[in-house]
Amino acid sequence: MYKVAMIGAGNVAWHLAPALEQCGHLVTTVYSRRLHHAEALCSRLYEARAVDSLDFSAVPADLFVLSVSDDALPQVIDRLILPEHPLTVVHTSGSRPLEILRVLEVPHGVFYPLQTFSKNKEVDWRRLPICVEGNTPQVEERLMQLARAVSGRVYQINSERRRYLHVAAVFACNFTNHMLALAEDLCEQYELDFEILHPLLAETFEKALRVGARQAQTGPAARGDVELIEQHLHLLSQDPDKQRIYRLLSESILNYQG
Amino acid sequence: MYKVAMIGAGNVAWHLAPALEQCGHLVTTVYSRRLHHAEALCSRLYEARAVDSLDFSAVPADLFVLSVSDDALPQVIDRLILPEHPLTVVHTSGSRPLEILRVLEVPHGVFYPLQTFSKNKEVDWRRLPICVEGNTPQVEERLMQLARAVSGRVYQINSERRRYLHVAAVFACNFTNHMLALAEDLCEQYELDFEILHPLLAETFEKALRVGARQAQTGPAARGDVELIEQHLHLLSQDPDKQRIYRLLSESILNYQG
Repeated sequence: MYKVAMIGAGNVAWHLAPALEQCGHLVTTVYSRRLHHAEALCSRLYEARAVDSLDFSAVPADLFVLSVSDDALPQVIDRLILPEHPLTVVHTSGSRPLEILRVLEVPHGVFYPLQTFSKNKEVDWRRLPICVEGNTPQVEERLMQLARAVSGRVYQINSERRRYLHVAAVFACNFTNHMLALAEDLCEQYELDFEILHPLLAETFEKALRVGARQAQTGPAARGDVELIEQHLHLLSQDPDKQRIYRLLSESILNYQG
Repeated sequence: MYKVAMIGAGNVAWHLAPALEQCGHLVTTVYSRRLHHAEALCSRLYEARAVDSLDFSAVPADLFVLSVSDDALPQVIDRLILPEHPLTVVHTSGSRPLEILRVLEVPHGVFYPLQTFSKNKEVDWRRLPICVEGNTPQVEERLMQLARAVSGRVYQINSERRRYLHVAAVFACNFTNHMLALAEDLCEQYELDFEILHPLLAETFEKALRVGARQAQTGPAARGDVELIEQHLHLLSQDPDKQRIYRLLSESILNYQG
């Protein structure tokens, strides 16, 4: 059993801290810059204490989980004061390397649950991928065990591959979402109900995951319908941003499918 | 009750013809350039006859449904010989205007089921949007009635708005799918299991439809994390196609969220 200090009380910590307690660990301390955030998370836990100081020298914990924003991570590490007894520190960031924790001179690792969390939405931890890395094989093995107790999908991924995984996630999630935003925008402009597209969208998405997106590609560019592409570019002539994106992505699909 | 001639036996006709029979209409004739395609569809229907000639002058039908590929549509219209009795012709294309049918000099319209169809996948017609247009209010009203018998989601959309709807569909479906293909590609290159991203993807998609994609946008560009964007661009330096897309879409998200 770990005694856990959660450093950060944001969306990840909000779901991860109770999940660790569900697996038999005990969260003793929750830090947030804003004490009432830490207190709110403590109210979901057995006996955790809320703190707003990064001096943990007297805190009863042997696992420190850094779960703050990517931006804040370097300065939190910088100001962190750890106790003298044996302990492990992990961060939960997908985009920051393991390396960033080395200055602490203690066993360290990454414990990255690959999901977007919202406080008001329950998380299905058994199906949620956790990517793990440790600074030694022993640390890594301990973190793998911890992750396997939380989730059925645990992956050992080093910092370099995790960086590419993060880029892939930007394409697969952030950019797909932006394409939806642009489509919403077009629908608004022409007084079309975006819901008309929902069934097509659901089918497209389902098919891409079932047969693979490359295999599932349809549309004017995939068919090489240059005339229709030109028509669409003309329709977008009042909207240079969408026009540029339409052109570049159509070219990319043409290249990619060719 | 319409007596229907299906012109084309591809994926749309494959599902639409039986759906029309379910609503009490009778498909009398199925045309395909390749007779065995027409015969395969006829085997799903009550008493339809397969033909491979576009001479319909003696065919017992009063609703002609042109359901061929966008490319083939103009030449099929050109060669079509219709009977002399009163009839209506519709096409099922999302990207072709109503206008294209005017040369036939009969009542005409568009009956566009907005979905991507596969022969081996059942279609839930009650939830499938159908976009309808007619060359006169009377034709349009008749087609609306027909569509309402098939689906619970019927929209009256003229050719100009349908063109923008089609552009929106390209963004929402073809381009999102291409983003997934690029993410798959990155995962392959770095020996990452694309399935790691599935739960995040499902959540992203579900959230975009629930709260709206613009509202749901996350990621480095949405946060304005210019440092991370630069790192990602650097990681993609061996792959100019993905790098260009990453740059353009990040700029677009920055503009769009700003």
